[in-house]
Amino acid sequence: MSETSLKRAIVLLSGGLDSATTLVMATAEGYECHCLSFDYGQRHITEIQYAEVLAKQYDATHRTVRIDIGQFGGSALTDNSIDIPERAEEDGEEGGIPVTYVPARNTIFLSYALGYAEVLEAHDIYIGVNAVDYSGYPDCRPEFISAFETMANLATRIGVEGQAVKIHTPLIDLRKSEIIQAGIELGLDYAQTVSCYQLDTTGRACGRCDSCRIRRAGFVDAGVIDPTRYV
Amino acid sequence: MSETSLKRAIVLLSGGLDSATTLVMATAEGYECHCLSFDYGQRHITEIQYAEVLAKQYDATHRTVRIDIGQFGGSALTDNSIDIPERAEEDGEEGGIPVTYVPARNTIFLSYALGYAEVLEAHDIYIGVNAVDYSGYPDCRPEFISAFETMANLATRIGVEGQAVKIHTPLIDLRKSEIIQAGIELGLDYAQTVSCYQLDTTGRACGRCDSCRIRRAGFVDAGVIDPTRYV
Repeated sequence: MSETSLKRAIVLLSGGLDSATTLVMATAEGYECHCLSFDYGQRHITEIQYAEVLAKQYDATHRTVRIDIGQFGGSALTDNSIDIPERAEEDGEEGGIPVTYVPARNTIFLSYALGYAEVLEAHDIYIGVNAVDYSGYPDCRPEFISAFETMANLATRIGVEGQAVKIHTPLIDLRKSEIIQAGIELGLDYAQTVSCYQLDTTGRACGRCDSCRIRRAGFVDAGVIDPTRYV
Repeated sequence: MSETSLKRAIVLLSGGLDSATTLVMATAEGYECHCLSFDYGQRHITEIQYAEVLAKQYDATHRTVRIDIGQFGGSALTDNSIDIPERAEEDGEEGGIPVTYVPARNTIFLSYALGYAEVLEAHDIYIGVNAVDYSGYPDCRPEFISAFETMANLATRIGVEGQAVKIHTPLIDLRKSEIIQAGIELGLDYAQTVSCYQLDTTGRACGRCDSCRIRRAGFVDAGVIDPTRYV
């Protein structure tokens, strides 16, 4: 396929396991991928370096957008005064919204992706949200994505001119183990991804935060060796 | 009314005529106002200083959020390689979307407002969009606002917990002259607002860009002296 015939897609790429798998899937579907990472004052900023390396490996462009969510406070991921919980049951009420939830994060990320899509005349946006393991985050649910897509088509030049904007969520119904299996089938090396909310200075994962626990269990369920370096 | 009994609102405040009127309206409706301005690499950055002064005058808090829309390009307002048109008919096709349109701007602005609303536990967001004079901008239409509100209530903790998020657009159906009349009735001094897309170094408006022309005509239609200093 010649370069000019490729369809363009915007891929939200954090450097984590889910978004890396999403990039590999979008690439496999034949898109020319343009990746966006966000520096929003998160504690786990190292993941952006992983994102940059991954994008390069998959012949995708990569931009990092600095955003000011941190100045608002309100999340354990951007506010150092809130402890990161080590087990889900410490994280507020059962079935409630975790303290690691960042207010309106996916709304803000997708809004930037939408603006970038307009400029590049791309109609496809990929985001690695997952409703199974992160059911406590309201902005990871299919009904949120669907409402965003409807809004996006009313908000923009590309939507108004009848070339619909599509928000792709290839992971939304997959279990973590299924995501890992899909990525491995497409040749993704998960050593190049990072999940931990609080990596140490040598790049080792804590192994105890929610994100580490879900990742570890996913590799066990998938029957695959977890290449992560843990403390 | 005691301070603790005030309901909180987030007000998007650019320092322009429309958003200043919106702030005054929200204040008159009894809200404790928390204003957000955006520094997005726009040419008319001076307006943020006007926003700061206005917020202070109305006992509102004020934050400026730096956002990276400019790095995407694609608009005459953020891209110096695109000329600002002096008459609407130069601005692309008749009835089309103006080159001064910034991709996904209101979507991004409202997304930040939504995140800030969550942190402050505010359920009300004010935005001074207007569908009459700016009908070429897709993200100024009532159907866009309505779709954003639906999405916002699915995206957030405050929405999910049943306390609906409301996007207020008090200007949406008003002509410019009606906006000016409403602001004057509420005591707003329009010398404290700025509309021009390309103010000169002494703060004088060009008088020729679309925004100046609409402002001037609005004051004429309202039968009110325009306090703006023009070149």
